[in-house]
Amino acid sequence: MNTPNPVFIPGPTNIPDELRRAIDVQTIDHRSSAFGELLHPTLEGVKRIFKTKTGTAFILPTTGTGAWETAITNTLSPGDKVLVSRYGVFSHKWIDLCERHGLDVMVVEQGWGLGAPADTFAEILAADRSHEIKAVLVTHNETATGVRSNIRQVRQAIDASNHPAMLYVDGVSSIGSMDFRMDEWGVDIAITGSQKGFMLPPGLGILCLSEKALVTTKTAKLSRCFFDLGDMATNYEIGGYPYTPPVALIKGLSHAIGMLEAETLPAVFARHYRIAEGVRRAVSAWGFDLCAKDSHLYSDTVSTILLPESVDGNAVVAHAADAYQVAFGAGLGQLAGKAFRIGHLGQLTDVMALSGIATAEMVLSDMGASIQMGSGVAAAQEFYRSSHAANARMKRAA
Amino acid sequence: MNTPNPVFIPGPTNIPDELRRAIDVQTIDHRSSAFGELLHPTLEGVKRIFKTKTGTAFILPTTGTGAWETAITNTLSPGDKVLVSRYGVFSHKWIDLCERHGLDVMVVEQGWGLGAPADTFAEILAADRSHEIKAVLVTHNETATGVRSNIRQVRQAIDASNHPAMLYVDGVSSIGSMDFRMDEWGVDIAITGSQKGFMLPPGLGILCLSEKALVTTKTAKLSRCFFDLGDMATNYEIGGYPYTPPVALIKGLSHAIGMLEAETLPAVFARHYRIAEGVRRAVSAWGFDLCAKDSHLYSDTVSTILLPESVDGNAVVAHAADAYQVAFGAGLGQLAGKAFRIGHLGQLTDVMALSGIATAEMVLSDMGASIQMGSGVAAAQEFYRSSHAANARMKRAA
Amino acid sequence: MNTPNPVFIPGPTNIPDELRRAIDVQTIDHRSSAFGELLHPTLEGVKRIFKTKTGTAFILPTTGTGAWETAITNTLSPGDKVLVSRYGVFSHKWIDLCERHGLDVMVVEQGWGLGAPADTFAEILAADRSHEIKAVLVTHNETATGVRSNIRQVRQAIDASNHPAMLYVDGVSSIGSMDFRMDEWGVDIAITGSQKGFMLPPGLGILCLSEKALVTTKTAKLSRCFFDLGDMATNYEIGGYPYTPPVALIKGLSHAIGMLEAETLPAVFARHYRIAEGVRRAVSAWGFDLCAKDSHLYSDTVSTILLPESVDGNAVVAHAADAYQVAFGAGLGQLAGKAFRIGHLGQLTDVMALSGIATAEMVLSDMGASIQMGSGVAAAQEFYRSSHAANARMKRAA
Amino acid sequence: MNTPNPVFIPGPTNIPDELRRAIDVQTIDHRSSAFGELLHPTLEGVKRIFKTKTGTAFILPTTGTGAWETAITNTLSPGDKVLVSRYGVFSHKWIDLCERHGLDVMVVEQGWGLGAPADTFAEILAADRSHEIKAVLVTHNETATGVRSNIRQVRQAIDASNHPAMLYVDGVSSIGSMDFRMDEWGVDIAITGSQKGFMLPPGLGILCLSEKALVTTKTAKLSRCFFDLGDMATNYEIGGYPYTPPVALIKGLSHAIGMLEAETLPAVFARHYRIAEGVRRAVSAWGFDLCAKDSHLYSDTVSTILLPESVDGNAVVAHAADAYQVAFGAGLGQLAGKAFRIGHLGQLTDVMALSGIATAEMVLSDMGASIQMGSGVAAAQEFYRSSHAANARMKRAA
Repeated sequence: MNTPNPVFIPGPTNIPDELRRAIDVQTIDHRSSAFGELLHPTLEGVKRIFKTKTGTAFILPTTGTGAWETAITNTLSPGDKVLVSRYGVFSHKWIDLCERHGLDVMVVEQGWGLGAPADTFAEILAADRSHEIKAVLVTHNETATGVRSNIRQVRQAIDASNHPAMLYVDGVSSIGSMDFRMDEWGVDIAITGSQKGFMLPPGLGILCLSEKALVTTKTAKLSRCFFDLGDMATNYEIGGYPYTPPVALIKGLSHAIGMLEAETLPAVFARHYRIAEGVRRAVSAWGFDLCAKDSHLYSDTVSTILLPESVDGNAVVAHAADAYQVAFGAGLGQLAGKAFRIGHLGQLTDVMALSGIATAEMVLSDMGASIQMGSGVAAAQEFYRSSHAANARMKRAA
Repeated sequence: MNTPNPVFIPGPTNIPDELRRAIDVQTIDHRSSAFGELLHPTLEGVKRIFKTKTGTAFILPTTGTGAWETAITNTLSPGDKVLVSRYGVFSHKWIDLCERHGLDVMVVEQGWGLGAPADTFAEILAADRSHEIKAVLVTHNETATGVRSNIRQVRQAIDASNHPAMLYVDGVSSIGSMDFRMDEWGVDIAITGSQKGFMLPPGLGILCLSEKALVTTKTAKLSRCFFDLGDMATNYEIGGYPYTPPVALIKGLSHAIGMLEAETLPAVFARHYRIAEGVRRAVSAWGFDLCAKDSHLYSDTVSTILLPESVDGNAVVAHAADAYQVAFGAGLGQLAGKAFRIGHLGQLTDVMALSGIATAEMVLSDMGASIQMGSGVAAAQEFYRSSHAANARMKRAA
Repeated sequence: MNTPNPVFIPGPTNIPDELRRAIDVQTIDHRSSAFGELLHPTLEGVKRIFKTKTGTAFILPTTGTGAWETAITNTLSPGDKVLVSRYGVFSHKWIDLCERHGLDVMVVEQGWGLGAPADTFAEILAADRSHEIKAVLVTHNETATGVRSNIRQVRQAIDASNHPAMLYVDGVSSIGSMDFRMDEWGVDIAITGSQKGFMLPPGLGILCLSEKALVTTKTAKLSRCFFDLGDMATNYEIGGYPYTPPVALIKGLSHAIGMLEAETLPAVFARHYRIAEGVRRAVSAWGFDLCAKDSHLYSDTVSTILLPESVDGNAVVAHAADAYQVAFGAGLGQLAGKAFRIGHLGQLTDVMALSGIATAEMVLSDMGASIQMGSGVAAAQEFYRSSHAANARMKRAA
Repeated sequence: MNTPNPVFIPGPTNIPDELRRAIDVQTIDHRSSAFGELLHPTLEGVKRIFKTKTGTAFILPTTGTGAWETAITNTLSPGDKVLVSRYGVFSHKWIDLCERHGLDVMVVEQGWGLGAPADTFAEILAADRSHEIKAVLVTHNETATGVRSNIRQVRQAIDASNHPAMLYVDGVSSIGSMDFRMDEWGVDIAITGSQKGFMLPPGLGILCLSEKALVTTKTAKLSRCFFDLGDMATNYEIGGYPYTPPVALIKGLSHAIGMLEAETLPAVFARHYRIAEGVRRAVSAWGFDLCAKDSHLYSDTVSTILLPESVDGNAVVAHAADAYQVAFGAGLGQLAGKAFRIGHLGQLTDVMALSGIATAEMVLSDMGASIQMGSGVAAAQEFYRSSHAANARMKRAA
């Protein structure tokens, strides 16, 4: 599929021209001082985006899955108990990864469309008097269901019983697009990748560890080598890297951080909210429901839209690609066939979003859904217009 | 304006990624054999797009205006009479250029919204017994008004009185996007640029001369040097160029021709028609009129949309840029303020067109026009859906 | 260091323009059929470069180190014994990785400047009657010393005692640049990365497993998840990937394979030999020695040059970067300060090599070495001239 | 010829990566305010590079030849007399252009290898009591012969007899690479292109007019339209352009000016001198002569090297391309076959220059010249080394 249309998948996102140019570079000697001069300010920038001052940032040539593995293997030992809730495909995958690495995973099943159950976590942790639970693992934004969990509440659940468990957060599809506050929320490890809010191609696993998490890397016994953060830290100190570093992507990350900070994070989050809310109003105008059960759960990076029984979600995605050269996300796991997803994160504008909504209307109608052409578009247009007008008023007032 | 939104101006058009890569090349020695090996097949490709077998193609490092000047100065002498009709800004500009070069320009004024008046031309030419008129100049697609002239009829008007006048056609905003047949229509000189149907940045003036036109270059006395086609031809013969050639853009042109031919010209034209017709249905749904007076005059590359008195066209364009980062074309000349233009040529998809239509609705409403959100989008969606369905049926039948 | 000078480090190599363009692409939906249509032919291409028909290829978003880890963790279990020789930094690193993953590593120390000791291996394997040794690990081209080991001899050493041990080969700095024959040499796992012979940025670990090695992945007990080849294989079958795939780099790899095959592998190897031999003649003209002890050990991708005591290798590298903006490789491990390295692999020409040699002469003299300016250049020039003349004669004869 | 080797032609020059990225941009609306915000600072930057405060800068989508035509047709009328000396192919071409446009061209023939004859000019101008000579035309750097003329002396020759003739200078292959001072030297029109000192692809004609020259554009009667500076000026005032502007190249020009100013012009000129002097020392070491007759005539952007009778210059250029994929310049005009040229302008380093010198040695020897391999390289190396050492001393002292 070679098309100028934007993608509406929940990552990798549409790459800004500016970032494509930033990563289109010739080879430099990664053992020269130029590398350290690039790496260290980028690590500092990562910390600003994660909103951590006391944490330590790491950048690895891997994906979000590799960043998970890095988090787990560097801080835990075989048989360690971790607490996690399953409410979508990505929280499930993290559970699977922990199990493969020999952890004792305590799973709280949760309905898809809901987020991490802070109350249940609080009960479990309070009951864990011997503090066997070493870490609580939360997927901040479950990309399969379009649900945002409340990380602050999970931290409160841990603190309520003075439990020493660490809090690990998968922020792959939230960080850089939705509000995330590592220090304030008491997150011990937060991870993401390059291909979502950072708007780059995949290739970087990015993570920050709190001081507490960093200490555990000294004693953690899960086997690791490529993902070893001790080697990373030792090499970072001398402006080096334990193996060939992904120089171009690190340069791109540096540039992406600059773009986010030039727009300002509040404006980036507000833009994601605005675009997402337009999509949600379109969904509502169509008479469809989101998978997310309540408005406080709504993700601003991806909307998972439940389909009537007569419409097959996989056919929707296939037809959109075939007829209109537009990529939407399919329903995953138990939502396969029953839903489709509109990704709306990274570099996106109201105008691009409207084209996605308009396309979805055509596709859904083509597939037999009863949708009035332009109805969702109109709902989104009204919201975007009023948002622009409000912004313009604020600018004039300022 | 740094935005991922497409432009909806009638050229330069959105540049396909593929062409951006094709022109992103290092310097080669333009005096080596590599240059001729690039140039000659590209000239042949130009001829296929212009649909001429007997013509001769030239590529100059200039713009469409420079290509006009090339056509005129290489084939005419001071005081020569040319016949031309004025029905928009671009036909006017060509008249102005001829006058500056000391030609005797016979202008037939025509209403804006109409095309070249073949009947009037026929009368004038029949009356010109002494054959003083050396050339008839026609703007195929008047970019200011969105009007397509009937070139075949102009040729018939010339032939009706057996007049030897040559026929020069400005195909800047038509060739490569709308049906154009140099040989069949008896065109003596046709010109275009790189930045419209060829989807490249500006920088190339591209023209073909019939055998008859080529002969006149030997005796034409208008002064010229940079634009001299004799120098071009002499150098082409040995794989050279009279000065530093625009190698990267010629490589891009070669690639663009390949893209057009891979899609096939009929499919390219059908796509332009489909997208344009969607825009026109949206305009009709809004209750607005096109500048073009009749459907056989409709341009498939640009729609000039007349606005109600209460809406200022320049404000529409400015607000679209400011509020939504979308570029439309302003009304030009006598249409300034009274119209705005949606360009829909080059690399464009239904999906992109829908985003332009949706944006126009927001902008027009913001400017006080009475438009129902989504109404134009819905009209275009229905047309695009039915076009797709028809295509799909045809494919299945085949 | 922002310079148009080529790098002379032994990877990442100078990236051809063609490959930079190939990887400069927008996001596509990696869950669409387009991904499988890219992946599968690329895997087949990898097999052709590795020269295996019966092997299975895998591409992971990691580095050479990650590819090592993939090889080990997918085919071995904790406590398994492996046999390996240490003769440089990279063979050492592989040993370290095995030890960290809990393998029982039997190390044969070998002088730096020598290759894998096939004879000693043969003795050890013959003595291992109970077949405790599960795999023999060999670094084909030791990038630290510029030494090429004889893989065929190692296979013969294994077969001499009918030992069932598998043969794993690190071909990171050889495959795609120097002769490598996976099937013919009986290699069970061969690995490389994207940033050496394939001339791409780093980001891909590439490996092939023999049928025998593939079987062991079913029972191997070392913990793994990101690097799990079972997940890879399962997803490959349906045109998918276990997590977000590095689409752009896979496209680049596909293109790189095309470039190598267009030049033909024998021509690629001959070019590497020619350029390397020019460098070696220069070294000889300077009166210096290579680290590699014998001509059959000479690497065609990197030359490690021993320095007189009075010249510090690190200063050589630093001065080259500072004064002339040229990157050479430093001496590593026990050669730190005592040697420097000229990398000559990937996209390189005689002309570029001459600039590296000329720069080395200036740098060495600046650092106090007694070198006649132009002496090494002249030796290389003579060799390149005669090589060209021989080639030209052959072409004429053909 | 698809090669990573640099070109050694006297323009177009090797394009820096940074500039390739700067011009790799999507279409923007050239009728939006963004265009004026790009154009005006760029025009100011052009003035700084030309070293004029009182001049007016223009940028046209053309080549150096087009810039000549612009200079002539905007300031002169048919039959006007101009004084010019012919001492190479490019001064000849300018004469030819003037003659084609109907000027009365007074030609002073000068030996190739010499520059503009200020003394003869002085005599002629003194004798021209009726001030029929309207302009004196000088090619600052004759690219065919590698000769730099003394512009200051020509101005003095004009002023000596208080002659009102204007001074037009072709700075195509000097401006941005060699010292040029428009105001101080009393230049009335200076022209250049994008593809030499500005290191961009061809496509821009760049010129500055003094206040006096600007006045003459009001009355000059040579016919022009595309090249009309009045239209340019009128449109510039409103942030516009008379036709489609070459936006990407103007952005590139802006960036190139930034690069030159970041390096500082004195450093840019010193670098060009250093590299050129290295080439000249190599030529001398070979026992060859430059075409330029005296050291004060030496061009720092191109060296034209006279060949012994036994060596054919065209064969040298062809063999370099064929055998080593390196582009040199051929001898032009009366030097065809008798000389070859090494271009050394734009983005070039000592290291790249050494590769060109080394290649020339191989090529010349292959063609039968008696040259000791490495002899020229050694001479250049010594000069580059001593230059670097001197620079390093100066930095330490500062």
